[in-house]
Amino acid sequence: MPYEDHDLELDLRWWAAANYLTVAQIYLQDNTLLREPLRPEHIKPRLLGHWGTSPGLSMIYTILNRHIRRTDTDWLYVTGPGHGGPALVASTYLEGTYSEIYPTVARDAEGVRVLCRQFSSPGGIPSHVSVPTPGSIHEGGELGYALVHAAGAAFDRPDLTVACVIGDGEAETGPLSASWKLPAFLNPRRDGAVLPILHLNDAKIAGPTVLGRTSDEDVAHYLSGQGWAPVVVEGDDPHRVFRNLERAVREAHETIREAQHAARSGSGERVRWPAIVLRTPKGWTGPHEVDGVLVEGTNRAHQVPLSGVRDNPEHLRLLQDWLASYRPETLFDENGTLVDELAALAPSGDKRMGSTPYANGGRLLTPLTVPPLDAYALDVPAPGTTFHGTTKVLGELLRDIYSRNTTKDGGGSFRLFCPDETASNRLDAVFDATDRCWQLPTTEWDTALSPDGRVMEVLSEHLCQGWLEGYLLAGGHGLFASYEAFAMVSVSMMIQHVKWLQHARDLRWREPVASLNILLTSTCWRNDHNGFSHQGPGMIDAAIPLSSEVVRVWLPPDANTLLSISDHCLRSRDHVNLIVVDKQEHLQYLTLEEAHEHCARGASIWEWAGTEATTADRPEVPDSPDIVLASAGDVPTQEVLAAAELLREWVPYLRVRVVNVVDLLALMPVRDHPHGLSEVAFIELFTADTDVIFAFHGYSRAVHELLHGRTGAARFHVHGFSEQGTTTTPFDMVVVNEMSRYHLVLDALRRSRRVPERSTDLADYCRTQLERHRSYVVEHLEDMPEVKDWTWGSTTSKCAGRTPA
Amino acid sequence: MPYEDHDLELDLRWWAAANYLTVAQIYLQDNTLLREPLRPEHIKPRLLGHWGTSPGLSMIYTILNRHIRRTDTDWLYVTGPGHGGPALVASTYLEGTYSEIYPTVARDAEGVRVLCRQFSSPGGIPSHVSVPTPGSIHEGGELGYALVHAAGAAFDRPDLTVACVIGDGEAETGPLSASWKLPAFLNPRRDGAVLPILHLNDAKIAGPTVLGRTSDEDVAHYLSGQGWAPVVVEGDDPHRVFRNLERAVREAHETIREAQHAARSGSGERVRWPAIVLRTPKGWTGPHEVDGVLVEGTNRAHQVPLSGVRDNPEHLRLLQDWLASYRPETLFDENGTLVDELAALAPSGDKRMGSTPYANGGRLLTPLTVPPLDAYALDVPAPGTTFHGTTKVLGELLRDIYSRNTTKDGGGSFRLFCPDETASNRLDAVFDATDRCWQLPTTEWDTALSPDGRVMEVLSEHLCQGWLEGYLLAGGHGLFASYEAFAMVSVSMMIQHVKWLQHARDLRWREPVASLNILLTSTCWRNDHNGFSHQGPGMIDAAIPLSSEVVRVWLPPDANTLLSISDHCLRSRDHVNLIVVDKQEHLQYLTLEEAHEHCARGASIWEWAGTEATTADRPEVPDSPDIVLASAGDVPTQEVLAAAELLREWVPYLRVRVVNVVDLLALMPVRDHPHGLSEVAFIELFTADTDVIFAFHGYSRAVHELLHGRTGAARFHVHGFSEQGTTTTPFDMVVVNEMSRYHLVLDALRRSRRVPERSTDLADYCRTQLERHRSYVVEHLEDMPEVKDWTWGSTTSKCAGRTPA
Repeated sequence: MPYEDHDLELDLRWWAAANYLTVAQIYLQDNTLLREPLRPEHIKPRLLGHWGTSPGLSMIYTILNRHIRRTDTDWLYVTGPGHGGPALVASTYLEGTYSEIYPTVARDAEGVRVLCRQFSSPGGIPSHVSVPTPGSIHEGGELGYALVHAAGAAFDRPDLTVACVIGDGEAETGPLSASWKLPAFLNPRRDGAVLPILHLNDAKIAGPTVLGRTSDEDVAHYLSGQGWAPVVVEGDDPHRVFRNLERAVREAHETIREAQHAARSGSGERVRWPAIVLRTPKGWTGPHEVDGVLVEGTNRAHQVPLSGVRDNPEHLRLLQDWLASYRPETLFDENGTLVDELAALAPSGDKRMGSTPYANGGRLLTPLTVPPLDAYALDVPAPGTTFHGTTKVLGELLRDIYSRNTTKDGGGSFRLFCPDETASNRLDAVFDATDRCWQLPTTEWDTALSPDGRVMEVLSEHLCQGWLEGYLLAGGHGLFASYEAFAMVSVSMMIQHVKWLQHARDLRWREPVASLNILLTSTCWRNDHNGFSHQGPGMIDAAIPLSSEVVRVWLPPDANTLLSISDHCLRSRDHVNLIVVDKQEHLQYLTLEEAHEHCARGASIWEWAGTEATTADRPEVPDSPDIVLASAGDVPTQEVLAAAELLREWVPYLRVRVVNVVDLLALMPVRDHPHGLSEVAFIELFTADTDVIFAFHGYSRAVHELLHGRTGAARFHVHGFSEQGTTTTPFDMVVVNEMSRYHLVLDALRRSRRVPERSTDLADYCRTQLERHRSYVVEHLEDMPEVKDWTWGSTTSKCAGRTPA
Repeated sequence: MPYEDHDLELDLRWWAAANYLTVAQIYLQDNTLLREPLRPEHIKPRLLGHWGTSPGLSMIYTILNRHIRRTDTDWLYVTGPGHGGPALVASTYLEGTYSEIYPTVARDAEGVRVLCRQFSSPGGIPSHVSVPTPGSIHEGGELGYALVHAAGAAFDRPDLTVACVIGDGEAETGPLSASWKLPAFLNPRRDGAVLPILHLNDAKIAGPTVLGRTSDEDVAHYLSGQGWAPVVVEGDDPHRVFRNLERAVREAHETIREAQHAARSGSGERVRWPAIVLRTPKGWTGPHEVDGVLVEGTNRAHQVPLSGVRDNPEHLRLLQDWLASYRPETLFDENGTLVDELAALAPSGDKRMGSTPYANGGRLLTPLTVPPLDAYALDVPAPGTTFHGTTKVLGELLRDIYSRNTTKDGGGSFRLFCPDETASNRLDAVFDATDRCWQLPTTEWDTALSPDGRVMEVLSEHLCQGWLEGYLLAGGHGLFASYEAFAMVSVSMMIQHVKWLQHARDLRWREPVASLNILLTSTCWRNDHNGFSHQGPGMIDAAIPLSSEVVRVWLPPDANTLLSISDHCLRSRDHVNLIVVDKQEHLQYLTLEEAHEHCARGASIWEWAGTEATTADRPEVPDSPDIVLASAGDVPTQEVLAAAELLREWVPYLRVRVVNVVDLLALMPVRDHPHGLSEVAFIELFTADTDVIFAFHGYSRAVHELLHGRTGAARFHVHGFSEQGTTTTPFDMVVVNEMSRYHLVLDALRRSRRVPERSTDLADYCRTQLERHRSYVVEHLEDMPEVKDWTWGSTTSKCAGRTPA
């Protein structure tokens, strides 16, 4: 269908309306439809906003609107240049979505006034494309994630096309640069499509951009080398650019649909996905020159091109002319309502990009089918006596989640995202259900790799996490599994996602979405086989200060607790769950039933491990424990239990309590976190005044940070990861960080309320063992036999021979 | 000069020696020169290491050795695939460097035994290319930074060529993907060169790589589109590949030198820098098939191809054959020393890549010339009465540091790195000394932009920080300035750099290097004009748990303290300094002299702001303060002072102390941090038992974390950033986070030791002001006049009219 002159003229008028409202939002607090000459008091006291990128964003929106109406297809608009917030607010206002969601911003003169006043104002809306912006799944602030979010939204959404506008500033970032590898992972049969629109307007805040100053030929090579088929649209004449962009969008979409059709009818070849390179002037249609200096087309158009409007009559006049140039009187009727012939340009209902359910994924969300956990539960005949790979059971659960949440077209609603580590992290059971996703050539010796695979492996935490975020915000479920230390690579994305969810929870129209679940495995304690670079538990510290409504930190000590927690997290909504658990073989403690109860409580006394029961009837022993040993995390729990056993063996009448914490933020006071234990429950666990030796998975001060405000916080003595590491043995890691059973025993004896008989002997024994350890590892290059296979109950026999009973 | 057959045969034997020692390090603890048939007890108890990438790394090293000897040029080798640690250890051992640095690893049979036993063993060396590896400036662990580190090392080093080996796994990461934009920033006149060698061996841990499965044509387009001139070297026949690689290196270096010569004689054009794409089999020369499964050339060769050597006689036999295939008896003489004709292949002295001073930058480091600070000091006639842009003075200092540390060739030893925000961060005075660095086309309206500019602006925190890290480790000085929130984008790099310095401090042969200085500006409190995404002080939380030997956190309250601290940081060695200060206009408090004293102490009482002096003689007032108001950070200090003034005005006989903390880690107990105040000094500041209302720049729990172990830590009541934000006014930011002067006063009255007269009136006043604030900002879209220009002393007059005196 041709793009008639009549259509073009209408589109240019819609565009003028969007540009008008963009400028009005940035500048005006009154006279917002320019019904009288501008006066200083019409101008906002603070001028905030970004004009430069806005006209381009609005032009693309205009063209897409027409295309959607013609083709009746579903499109999502991802705005990389999020600073262009007012442009997206304007477009969604013009199409009617905005007023439906926010009735006070009505489609009349008063609505336009509210629209302008709320922008970038206290109590109003942020200046960036953000959570309150209809049609957005992408916060425009921290740059780099537009294309990963767009891709994530397209996975398993075969009917969706995501238009992703990428600014040339953002294109310099690492995550965006990596995102172009998408064609290796996007499946034309079962996924939707992503149409990148690389918007080169030459400049960022203060200077030119690399791609803006790169030749068309080089830009085309850059993209074609990564599997795209780029088309350049360029110019500063609106008529010409509109025509060319309209054609480019139309042809790109035809190419996409042909490729999808071919793939879906079984005859597809590898796709070169279309991409549009759009070069238009920064600040297009704005003031060309200000104070004798060129503005339009340069970085000086980035934010507010006229900064002195309130005090400088010449600037005020320029603004008046600029606003008037859009002829608002021809765009809005006397009520201040968009004139009918323009209003008719918007697609209808949920086809409007501001209203698409793909941008409000909770509307598309179907509950995840999670099979009953009993089939995966480990048999734990007695606590601490058997070893098992903790994450292995999760792999089996995920395998069946894949199977049960797959659609006929080979898509589904669940995906696992992981830098090439799914097998390394012992989650490889998933490959019984599906392969790794791979659209590039394969060889005969590849395993678990195919175009239809839906496990997303790419050696980039940014891509993994960003894809998952987009997938979740468009209504999917998923898990990002990472080496613990390297999750820090994308920690800022986690922080931004928490901020997104924090705001989304305040907006009723945003339906809850599935939580962002991050499995931190290959942890610091058991990266003994890798270097110091692989040892870093800092994700916990990064998560703690963020919104308590959103963030959860889980430290399952074993497989059945991991199952219980994973089940909970995968069913939860609007949270960011960090689950920290190692992948190696570890001691197993709880049956599934016990695990459920433990996880529901968040922290419990493990009575079997303490001596409160066995010492209860002895008159010389006080009622409350002499010392509490507590732990959070798998390796710390192992060391605490070994310490408890040493104490039981050597000083049996010491009253020892053992507490395990699985829900870390339960330590926080209840006023600071909804999972915080009540003070009564806290004292029931830790007493009010007994010293607590706390073995912690992460950096020790994180626990102190959590405990502030608790009764007797100073009596907690935390042994955690103290940033000591290298390639060494598992036990050496706990020794060099002073969290070994021997360190814990020594600290317990030092802090204990009473000094039982034989304390000195036990302390000597511990010191001797620590000395012996060092010579043993250097001589034998491995752990001492006594520690490496320690199980609950084994100390008794070991020590028996060595010490007078 | 041709590559004679004789040379080639020698090089292949050197390569065999390197490969032999690589395999030996991974497997053997004894019989390390294979002088008898292998027995299980010769095998290490734990097999750790990565074979797959190693033969390629050693081949490149071999070829470069020959090239260095022929051309007598300086080369640095950056090993992206850091897992290939044993290959680099082997190469630097063969060239002699290793034994010079570590004499116990001598060039004889016992040395080879130690070499093998120490690898990946407790008390030995890490498995990755790392700090102890001679010739390395790049820890191989967290992937993505090879090319940025290589580039950083080349800046301002005109005689250096950096060979940067990039694995195809790493090439999938965000930071590495962005790094290819280097040709836009590398100046052939004054900088050295970077020769990327993209090593495609098809696979990462568990599957293929994107570039490994991309056609040569597409890979070439990908690189050429970014300004490189790629050459492909491919094959699995060592003779052929050696010949082709030798030619590729030789021709690349010729091209580089021609381009540099042209540029340096003033006739240069834009350079297309050479790059080598090298395709060789993963695990080349290792076991081809194991247990009937193909290994060589697949991901199964990634780590330890034969895993069951100790227990599986067939695997033991395969290992025996594999080791023997290198014919060690022809490589090492009867003493176990490398035979002379091979030893002669190494370059000599500092030309050896393991010995180059460019990889031990402290050897090249010259002290930075920092001009006397007096010229930049702000005149502060009275504390808290004048406003000034705090970072502006730093910009002026940096301008003159640029000028005074510039060499004749236009290079120098100092650079500022910043995502396009130098001007936004008010550091633009530097542009009086130099421009932004830019090798792409320029236009007439560009400002402060030229090929010879040495301010590094690119919209990527990864590139900025990575370039600076490389620059520092090769002997330069510098500063990375970032929007506070977005420094989190590259926080994992900061963490890895701290780890590097922590290890380097333990190695005597590593000379101290200039500190990594990170200026966090455009902070959370004054990103009121941007969105919530721009508001995040989490860098402090990330830094606190890291090595106390390395990490410093500075919160200057004003310009002169910023000068004092910057001077200190720029002169310091082997630290990571976080300097947190906002860029907007702020109140100024201290003269330069006072600032020096304050910074040297770390924290001081600001007597002028408290009432201890004015209340000292009143009999009814106790000796110790009723309340302490403390702050760390510019905006918190302003609010604390405004609160102090309100208290002084309304309840003048309340004994108030005001403390300012500039060196945040001074709060830590001295046993935990070398900057920690002694307990005596701590109590002198904060008393032993008075409640402290602490206004803090960052997340409040970070302070609690630091205070653990201090006398009466529970009496500190911290008001910090509580993750509340949006686009709003400056004062609204402190209100919504409950750190405003009114919140502080209310808390002070609640916690004060005594309840003075008129406390209730003051509390009512504060509550009224907070209510008024909300209606004011919504109505006027700006801050109340009383708060937005508040200066020390202004409350008196303001309040006077409102309250009975």
